[in-house]
Amino acid sequence: MRPQIVLFGDSITEQSFRLGGWGAALANTYSRKADIVNRGYGGYNTRWALFLLNHLFPLGSATPPAAATIFFGANDAALSGRTSERQHVPVDEYKENLKKIVQQLQECSPTILIVLITPPPIDEEGRLQYARSLYGDNAMKLPERTNEMTGVYAEKCVELAKELDLPSINLWSKMQETEGWQKKFLSDGLHLTQEGNAVVYQQVLRVFEDAWLIASKMPYDFPHHSEIDPKNPQKAFQQQCS
Amino acid sequence: MRPQIVLFGDSITEQSFRLGGWGAALANTYSRKADIVNRGYGGYNTRWALFLLNHLFPLGSATPPAAATIFFGANDAALSGRTSERQHVPVDEYKENLKKIVQQLQECSPTILIVLITPPPIDEEGRLQYARSLYGDNAMKLPERTNEMTGVYAEKCVELAKELDLPSINLWSKMQETEGWQKKFLSDGLHLTQEGNAVVYQQVLRVFEDAWLIASKMPYDFPHHSEIDPKNPQKAFQQQCS
Repeated sequence: MRPQIVLFGDSITEQSFRLGGWGAALANTYSRKADIVNRGYGGYNTRWALFLLNHLFPLGSATPPAAATIFFGANDAALSGRTSERQHVPVDEYKENLKKIVQQLQECSPTILIVLITPPPIDEEGRLQYARSLYGDNAMKLPERTNEMTGVYAEKCVELAKELDLPSINLWSKMQETEGWQKKFLSDGLHLTQEGNAVVYQQVLRVFEDAWLIASKMPYDFPHHSEIDPKNPQKAFQQQCS
Repeated sequence: MRPQIVLFGDSITEQSFRLGGWGAALANTYSRKADIVNRGYGGYNTRWALFLLNHLFPLGSATPPAAATIFFGANDAALSGRTSERQHVPVDEYKENLKKIVQQLQECSPTILIVLITPPPIDEEGRLQYARSLYGDNAMKLPERTNEMTGVYAEKCVELAKELDLPSINLWSKMQETEGWQKKFLSDGLHLTQEGNAVVYQQVLRVFEDAWLIASKMPYDFPHHSEIDPKNPQKAFQQQCS
């Protein structure tokens, strides 16, 4: 009965229900109006995400999602020849894969509102610190992701959104507008702090509301309790549920 | 594909995706294993909740919930003759209504794991303070709920769980074991602080894990990224998705 909003992405989506997470904040904002469905897959790049499409978004579904965020790229942008090489996807393929994801969602749900989100910026020193905290002297000496290369992927993501006339959020640029973004928004040089989550939440909400997905204007799935006459409760339910 | 865990209740369930909320914490714990579906209806008592049953839990559903929390009573226990009288439901009817909710869920989903949760205790002084903060001199002079009466409802809830051989959480008793529970766990004498939410989360998780709903033992819906061979990614997906 409630529309579904699917969050499709990698670990930054998977972790979005942690304390202060952007997914949980959306779930709270759309409380009683829409269901937020977390389809975040930690470690996944867009190449692997393609294998999920027919399972997550089957054509002919009776309840296709009303809206979706597509939030990949942090893993695709892992550098070839460094420690996370296995996740690397060339940038042109990244763009093609994103396009396939968009197309499947649109076929599954012709009226769907899709928002493309770029990967966040990379704090290379934060990545190295994190590796040292885990592996000590055995840690990688060169970061497995660079901010510059992730920026190239972010640009491709925004480029695709323009070509497909979809809204997008350039998180890579947006976060770098704030001084101290490296530690303020990123916990390990890549994943989000609570403040970083707040940025994603605000940006997604802004795009949703600029479209038509405005919680305050969406109907409750059932009567608000103040509309229920305690002497004749069935009346309110008959009106909304019949 | 993922099992659904439904949280059915009143405002304490509806608000469970706020910062530090128990619903969001469950969603994070069961990340990639189960979907947490929030069906909290602020202000609702069990009498009004009955109107929702056939809509929320239709018989013959292809995807009935695997587990559910039923968490009502805070509104049923509002006192007759005080300012929240419209929400009051006599305690014997409360128990009967809870039983009808359980029966519908069990008919909808014969193997469902159901957990009954009692209302939390009431901090009467907290309720009066909250009313004064909203209405000043026009605020109610007597609390619309008492801790003692809510305790009677909590007892009935636990009694029903025993009769039906279901697990239950006596939140009313549990919270009062901690000194200073009035302000530590309750924000306005009734609703939960972050610490109060943490108690609910821990208690629900304990009951789920004592049954069979243990996140670490549940399968991922799709391969963990570490199981994907970058040179032959389809292999991991063929095994799990065919």
